[in-house]
Amino acid sequence: MGKYDALVELLLEVVKEGGDIKQEDYSIPVGISNRHIHLSRNDVNALFGEGYPLTKIKDLSQPGQYACKETLTICGPKGAIENVRILGPERQESQVEILKTDCFKLGLKAPVKLSGELQGTPGITLVGPKGSILLGQGVIIAQRHIHMSLENAQRFGVRDGELVTIQISGLRGGTYANVAVRANTTSQLECHIDTDEANAMELAPTSKITIVK
Amino acid sequence: MGKYDALVELLLEVVKEGGDIKQEDYSIPVGISNRHIHLSRNDVNALFGEGYPLTKIKDLSQPGQYACKETLTICGPKGAIENVRILGPERQESQVEILKTDCFKLGLKAPVKLSGELQGTPGITLVGPKGSILLGQGVIIAQRHIHMSLENAQRFGVRDGELVTIQISGLRGGTYANVAVRANTTSQLECHIDTDEANAMELAPTSKITIVK
Repeated sequence: MGKYDALVELLLEVVKEGGDIKQEDYSIPVGISNRHIHLSRNDVNALFGEGYPLTKIKDLSQPGQYACKETLTICGPKGAIENVRILGPERQESQVEILKTDCFKLGLKAPVKLSGELQGTPGITLVGPKGSILLGQGVIIAQRHIHMSLENAQRFGVRDGELVTIQISGLRGGTYANVAVRANTTSQLECHIDTDEANAMELAPTSKITIVK
Repeated sequence: MGKYDALVELLLEVVKEGGDIKQEDYSIPVGISNRHIHLSRNDVNALFGEGYPLTKIKDLSQPGQYACKETLTICGPKGAIENVRILGPERQESQVEILKTDCFKLGLKAPVKLSGELQGTPGITLVGPKGSILLGQGVIIAQRHIHMSLENAQRFGVRDGELVTIQISGLRGGTYANVAVRANTTSQLECHIDTDEANAMELAPTSKITIVK
């Protein structure tokens, strides 16, 4: 084999090996949330009957979280929305996460808040098969956020609680600022936005985003 | 008056004058569009009766454009939406501008297009008081755009047809890319987005945006 052929062979080998080099993947899968409800045990009792067990129908991507068979009607001063899904497990305090779009229909102003930040938020009436209750507070528009493990936080160079900007590609693309990082030992990597935010940027359940800070 | 007092006096004068210097305002008002319909004369005839005149109830910000008293029901393969507003004046071809949110309810996939770019877009059934018609095409999600005069285009350093990025401030802020500049001699300065895009970024009719390119 002459020098020329040896060179070609070597080049081919190097190119082939090069093809195996993996570029680190910094893309983040998207989870799109529709309006939903988290309930306390007391409120489950009032709406479905004492001791009623919520029925899991589907695990969600975050460990331990699931969608329930049960739904409720939520009623504000101007209108009602039926078939709003309950997510489990039960929580210390009930919380209703709605869309900005829903605020007009229900006739209430919900603030953009992180899950659990319920101080001073408006209330709403929940109607179930065995009763209805008026929540004194707990209606929010969920602030977009990214769940991730502590290892991923290190890999992305971010920390729990930090606000980052995310980039969405495509004709309807752009950036969303103030996306909260929620990093802990158990979380699965996923960026949570609601259907308003998904529709405005044409994001689908298969979409991925990147952090641009 | 000593040197010190003279200096203080002069400083005060300069500061006062400085306060009068006007910073040029590069902010752009926002117009938020809900789903709506533009109709051809033939389609008005079919839906409302031969020669029926559409009734103007409100001028829109763009010269010559107005909201009509009349509404229609739009029907896709999966569902219908009632009370969809007709905007005047009549056009050469009917066009139905819906939201991404509506696509799920109606059961159709509308592409993001500039007004008038109807080639290959899906059709829809329109139901009026005197008849219904099946449009062969014309359903779009309006691509966000900024109307402006040629003078404003020059001031912003953009040209008709250019795609720019806009910046929205606030907790739910961010940027929208691919906003089309529509500059001509008659347009009023206004950035048109739809309710999905407004809700995702918490924009209100009083909001302003800026071009960041």
